Amino acid sequence: MGKLKRDRYEDLLEPMERELVAMARWVVTAGARVVVLFEGRDTAGKGGVIKTISRYLNPRMCRIVALGKPDERERGQWYFQRYVEHLPTAGEIVLFDRSWYNRAGVEKVMGFASDEQVQSFLSQAPQFERQLTDDGVILLKYWLACDQEKQEERFEERLNDPLKRWKLSPMDLAAREKYREYTRAREAMLAATHTPHAPWTIVDFNDQKRGRLTLVRDLLDRLPHEYVEPAVIEMDKLGAKPAREEFDIVEPIAPYPLD
Amino acid sequence: MGKLKRDRYEDLLEPMERELVAMARWVVTAGARVVVLFEGRDTAGKGGVIKTISRYLNPRMCRIVALGKPDERERGQWYFQRYVEHLPTAGEIVLFDRSWYNRAGVEKVMGFASDEQVQSFLSQAPQFERQLTDDGVILLKYWLACDQEKQEERFEERLNDPLKRWKLSPMDLAAREKYREYTRAREAMLAATHTPHAPWTIVDFNDQKRGRLTLVRDLLDRLPHEYVEPAVIEMDKLGAKPAREEFDIVEPIAPYPLD
Amino acid sequence: MGKLKRDRYEDLLEPMERELVAMARWVVTAGARVVVLFEGRDTAGKGGVIKTISRYLNPRMCRIVALGKPDERERGQWYFQRYVEHLPTAGEIVLFDRSWYNRAGVEKVMGFASDEQVQSFLSQAPQFERQLTDDGVILLKYWLACDQEKQEERFEERLNDPLKRWKLSPMDLAAREKYREYTRAREAMLAATHTPHAPWTIVDFNDQKRGRLTLVRDLLDRLPHEYVEPAVIEMDKLGAKPAREEFDIVEPIAPYPLD
Amino acid sequence: MGKLKRDRYEDLLEPMERELVAMARWVVTAGARVVVLFEGRDTAGKGGVIKTISRYLNPRMCRIVALGKPDERERGQWYFQRYVEHLPTAGEIVLFDRSWYNRAGVEKVMGFASDEQVQSFLSQAPQFERQLTDDGVILLKYWLACDQEKQEERFEERLNDPLKRWKLSPMDLAAREKYREYTRAREAMLAATHTPHAPWTIVDFNDQKRGRLTLVRDLLDRLPHEYVEPAVIEMDKLGAKPAREEFDIVEPIAPYPLD
Repeated sequence: MGKLKRDRYEDLLEPMERELVAMARWVVTAGARVVVLFEGRDTAGKGGVIKTISRYLNPRMCRIVALGKPDERERGQWYFQRYVEHLPTAGEIVLFDRSWYNRAGVEKVMGFASDEQVQSFLSQAPQFERQLTDDGVILLKYWLACDQEKQEERFEERLNDPLKRWKLSPMDLAAREKYREYTRAREAMLAATHTPHAPWTIVDFNDQKRGRLTLVRDLLDRLPHEYVEPAVIEMDKLGAKPAREEFDIVEPIAPYPLD
Repeated sequence: MGKLKRDRYEDLLEPMERELVAMARWVVTAGARVVVLFEGRDTAGKGGVIKTISRYLNPRMCRIVALGKPDERERGQWYFQRYVEHLPTAGEIVLFDRSWYNRAGVEKVMGFASDEQVQSFLSQAPQFERQLTDDGVILLKYWLACDQEKQEERFEERLNDPLKRWKLSPMDLAAREKYREYTRAREAMLAATHTPHAPWTIVDFNDQKRGRLTLVRDLLDRLPHEYVEPAVIEMDKLGAKPAREEFDIVEPIAPYPLD
Repeated sequence: MGKLKRDRYEDLLEPMERELVAMARWVVTAGARVVVLFEGRDTAGKGGVIKTISRYLNPRMCRIVALGKPDERERGQWYFQRYVEHLPTAGEIVLFDRSWYNRAGVEKVMGFASDEQVQSFLSQAPQFERQLTDDGVILLKYWLACDQEKQEERFEERLNDPLKRWKLSPMDLAAREKYREYTRAREAMLAATHTPHAPWTIVDFNDQKRGRLTLVRDLLDRLPHEYVEPAVIEMDKLGAKPAREEFDIVEPIAPYPLD
Repeated sequence: MGKLKRDRYEDLLEPMERELVAMARWVVTAGARVVVLFEGRDTAGKGGVIKTISRYLNPRMCRIVALGKPDERERGQWYFQRYVEHLPTAGEIVLFDRSWYNRAGVEKVMGFASDEQVQSFLSQAPQFERQLTDDGVILLKYWLACDQEKQEERFEERLNDPLKRWKLSPMDLAAREKYREYTRAREAMLAATHTPHAPWTIVDFNDQKRGRLTLVRDLLDRLPHEYVEPAVIEMDKLGAKPAREEFDIVEPIAPYPLD
């Protein structure tokens, strides 16, 4: 099976984008609270699918949360505290670009968390999530998969494309050799945290476009939304001839020369 | 002059995107603090140019700030307080999608601020900005212009395109008839706040693609950046054959069907 | 038994204050995290005992948290979210002057929470607290008791003393008639949340001074602290004759006249 | 002149406390915003006078702000940013226990700020304060004076009293020898920042009780408050015989033994 072509992809995506927009109306109307976690391999495509989902949503109701390394104060707190702060209020969707599962993934594999901390996290996470879902929060957890060969291709692309270079950190490269350790860490994570109240969904992102279609379709199918009519907005004819810009104090700068 | 075609636009934009990426390296290395304000007509294209600028920058160093209406507590505070909270630290760029100038624009035109509040704002803003620039903050202020005819076209497009509908509020439509009042408010704003330490730059966005090229070129020319070499990152050959994903506990869901 | 006299009280309290100071050294040295909840009857003396505990502690390590009514955004969130934000980091003690138990007390009795919300809270609270104690947080929960006769006396005192009048809200007075409802609500709360990992301690505050001694003694006995030597600080003789204030630009104002 | 006796002090203070309570009612009613800065010699008595002022005020309307050392992020920001965050909203009084003037005092004397940073601060502070007072904020600045001999006595008391020991840091002791440098730094600060819109008031705290009376009297005289009647609160007779505490699930612990 070859890679999905851009035109085909966009044709397939467009109706889903409309559904996303409709779903967002439902979230606002119903006062729902939606949390979506995005985890997975480096380079798998978390950022891309998050952009796809959020592109046509009002940023005031759909927030993206990508936390950096905890500072000293945060390291002393209850592990989940700094994530709790970003949970949605009624009528909001929060997309977590990496999440509390850092502890079971990168922190474990790279040795930033002790075995005891990881074990403690794995036993606490289901309880923490249970608290949220018992309270009515809709929690979806996605893990984006890709083979190491693809990962290598994408690392090289980032290395060679000045526009993508910033995405590449020395740590990413150090992590390259740990593909199998990540696999094992993921399996331990799934064993402990794939629960009935907060199951994981794994999506193949070897083809990123197809992965995005798969994930967005699944997301829409899982969210229990109902159709909400858009508000009717009337737009009358203007009462006067359209005006033009007029400047007395500062003039526009010269437009970018085209020849 | 016809509208700029997408291909041509992308060809012209690409080298600027590389410059933006290089400029961001300079900001981080020099510990610079950059604030860019985007004001202008509804539908002019603030959101689009902000996306263009931020697309290839690390979101940890380039933040977008779009504040909602002030709450009661904020309304009682010093007017600039809630904006101050979002100012950059060393090594950051903050793009304000609307800014403290709300008071001189929408709040004035729609009657949400009294004449006295607007006057007080217009006399305070240059002093406030002076504080920042004296402290070494780089402050750029853009105002995006478009004629009412264009604005009407774009409102209609938003009304008719379900994917853009959320951008359209009843208030936007109420503001449609106030094009000339906005012009007058802008002129009063320019008269009071186009200062040597914090001048305005007006950019014609009747053609949004060309407007973006014009603005980004100007932004790059104004920022006093020097060329900073990207960090050298070495990527060795993998020590073993690339691994593949293997799943024992949860399997990937079926990919989106293509036929 | 008569009321405890002030002198006697201070003699008994003083050694405990030294123990509190020593305990605080242990908290900092051990990186412990201590949460103490203070609940109880209106006028029982929560504020007073909190002052007694915090008086000689460094405010940077011993914080007092007294949250107001939730705003609209907070009302839409997970109920515990706004409290989580104030939990201690390593080396901190947080004293909650009222706490998440508002929902089972004043909100239930005054009808601000539905029966369903109260039930949901009562089943969630032990799990939430379990999360904290599993994570190593030391959690102490005190409920301050007093008979209605005492409560009436104290309300009258607040009403008649201009310096205490601000403590009295119309809601407090509305709640006066609900003494028995508060008793029932407390019993339901104890039945659901007096758990092995986070037990309640009830202290009789009919005599406030004795109540404070009882509570502070209990708090010290429960906290698993060890003795930590104070840091040795040497204070040498001054290298020169002590200087006096000298003013060239602004003179001190005249001291308050004593005759 | 001998030291003021406690009884005499309390007699003189009490009517001022009533005035403070009345003043606070005015602040709330008028929606005023009050900022009071407390600076001065180590041990002069900033903490004590802040307690005196705040003791009978509702902590929801009278906040005390004592910021620690700036973290890395804050050090990169506009110097005033972290203070701005704590400015009052309408109806609030904020008491700053040390303030932005740290830069001209301890940071200058102990070498934590460069001469350039201090100069820059001294030229910015009046402008920053002007912004606030132009916006209607009431800003009072107090500097508490005491001779070095007194300071030495108080340092020794802190060293020897286990209950006050935490107030004493090695830095305090290092600063002891710098009394004259602090004097010079204060004079430079006064020369630059004793402005018509935000004048300093210096109060002699060689006798702390008298200093407190002097400062509180001055504060009351400077605040432009008018008399506001307290809200009338009616307290009816209880509808039933006063109830007593009854416990079925958890009993109160034994009261602290008095013999």
